Amino acid sequence: MSKKISIVDIANALNISKTTVSFILNGRAQEKRISEELVERVLKLVKEVGYKPNSLAKSLRTGKSNIIGLMVEDISNPFFANIARLIEDRAYEKGYRIIYCSTDNDTNKTQDLITMFRDRHVDGYIMAPPKDIEEDVRDIIKSGLPVVMFDRYLPNIDTDYVVVDNQFSTYNATRHLMEQGYTKIAFITFSSEQTQMLDRVNGYKNALKEEKLKPYIKEIDFNRIEDLIIEPLTAYLKKNPGIDAVLFGTDHIGTCGLKVIKQLGLKVPDDLAVVSFDDYDVFKLYSPPVTAIAQPIEDIADNIISLLLKKLDSNANQTTQKITLSTNLNIRRSSKRLSDAVAQ
Amino acid sequence: MSKKISIVDIANALNISKTTVSFILNGRAQEKRISEELVERVLKLVKEVGYKPNSLAKSLRTGKSNIIGLMVEDISNPFFANIARLIEDRAYEKGYRIIYCSTDNDTNKTQDLITMFRDRHVDGYIMAPPKDIEEDVRDIIKSGLPVVMFDRYLPNIDTDYVVVDNQFSTYNATRHLMEQGYTKIAFITFSSEQTQMLDRVNGYKNALKEEKLKPYIKEIDFNRIEDLIIEPLTAYLKKNPGIDAVLFGTDHIGTCGLKVIKQLGLKVPDDLAVVSFDDYDVFKLYSPPVTAIAQPIEDIADNIISLLLKKLDSNANQTTQKITLSTNLNIRRSSKRLSDAVAQ
Repeated sequence: MSKKISIVDIANALNISKTTVSFILNGRAQEKRISEELVERVLKLVKEVGYKPNSLAKSLRTGKSNIIGLMVEDISNPFFANIARLIEDRAYEKGYRIIYCSTDNDTNKTQDLITMFRDRHVDGYIMAPPKDIEEDVRDIIKSGLPVVMFDRYLPNIDTDYVVVDNQFSTYNATRHLMEQGYTKIAFITFSSEQTQMLDRVNGYKNALKEEKLKPYIKEIDFNRIEDLIIEPLTAYLKKNPGIDAVLFGTDHIGTCGLKVIKQLGLKVPDDLAVVSFDDYDVFKLYSPPVTAIAQPIEDIADNIISLLLKKLDSNANQTTQKITLSTNLNIRRSSKRLSDAVAQ
Repeated sequence: MSKKISIVDIANALNISKTTVSFILNGRAQEKRISEELVERVLKLVKEVGYKPNSLAKSLRTGKSNIIGLMVEDISNPFFANIARLIEDRAYEKGYRIIYCSTDNDTNKTQDLITMFRDRHVDGYIMAPPKDIEEDVRDIIKSGLPVVMFDRYLPNIDTDYVVVDNQFSTYNATRHLMEQGYTKIAFITFSSEQTQMLDRVNGYKNALKEEKLKPYIKEIDFNRIEDLIIEPLTAYLKKNPGIDAVLFGTDHIGTCGLKVIKQLGLKVPDDLAVVSFDDYDVFKLYSPPVTAIAQPIEDIADNIISLLLKKLDSNANQTTQKITLSTNLNIRRSSKRLSDAVAQ
């Protein structure tokens, strides 16, 4: 490949500063009072030397930054890390860059990040919102910037979102356990009032109600220190030895659950059947492989980007779109009764 | 808790716009030609109502954005996701916010991201650099912004970095396999000319050389489609049935390796002993648990932030610091000879 063309080359060729070229290339010429004539000269040269992604011309016409702010709950969680990565890819293909942050489900931190993104001139926001953020989201929408939510939504805000059918997913997973003959089925999850978590508890409860089974719900406070999750989880399983199956509410608590099961020396599925929300490598590679509710993360990422780009590309006020995708219950040996489990 | 104070409240109380408050709170008052008198009034009120993190006053004095740009290779990789999260936490405690992006090891994309970060007024850069980025890094350093590298470094650039002792780590892991009696030890890794990857191959080779054993090195081109990693890996293991142990060069290839081992029905460690670089939940929960080279990710994150803050806090030109941390070989059943394995 030939030597790459840099901003410096363009600046030198036109005898202007690198900063000026940079402002122009980022659609900030007007803000910085750079003359249209200079913008055109830079544009022309950029085109001649083939400097940039195809989004450039559009960015210059529209004065947009072509940057999208993405707020996940916790980037070290595989679900959010994978979604973030896919969104970043999809956006990049379309000429947008993503900058992301973890909210840690902390309302103050999220407000701080929203401000930071606004000051950095993002064109739009993608967020898995924490609670009590309604006012701030309304401010964003009022200012004309699009917001797409994912994973959960705020019932009192009319905005685009992409979620999965959480309630049916846990209903379906619980039904699967009942069909396998399990009757004392626990639901172990993080305590949360977010929509996705409430729906997951409800799906579980609804399935049990149909068969008049008793619910065993254990809600654990989220903590970054894993031992503070493992401790109450261990105590709960020890205190309820009759439980014959457990549905974990998220991948993170599922992973902690597997560690506890290992420590307690419980055999899966003979002593305890296991199903978890979210599907990732830990569950696929565990022995026996763990039945998991797989979120369609590629579809989620595609839909988020499509919704956001639709809003960004049009000037008209559009109605909002709320997309609910279905999950896939990947049944593996961890939730099959012994006779079946041996067979597979 | 009482109702949170928002920027809007501050703006309303002083009868100024939210944007003005935001500019002031982000240290951009001077740039935006906001009067010192107004800055002081806002500051005073902010202090009275306790609106913000403690970094605020400093940010205002220095005119810094208190934002750090972090470039990882791939945020969906657990090593980078965990490091990013820890860096974000540490930085936030110190009053800095992190915005991050994946470079995908793509030089053009990285240049694009560097430009974006610069235009977003970051105070400094943290990066796991791809190749051919030297010129751009020199430009950053010349412009007075600090750069801290991690995971790998650029030998021809004099900048701070935090890495682990890759060469000793794989030397030590290979020695461990030899001590367990394995003699046909493969090293399976991604093809790369980055410092950390070269060091890992060298450590492996050096250990074998001491015992005059033949190296079995398989380098696989990185691909986002996992099947394109699994395919050559499967072919290699099938073609070399005599191999009795394998050392995987990264967590990602290690996970792919476990999938292949499962598909081929190989018993670990009886048919094949396994050790992997990087330690994460998949390896801990696998049966048998997988011996892994654990990078001290908390220490890495702490050191990165300390180096960067030291540079940010001082006006003087400082010498660069190059920090190499040691790893920990967590020996588990996957690399123990059968007689020992039964015992544990």
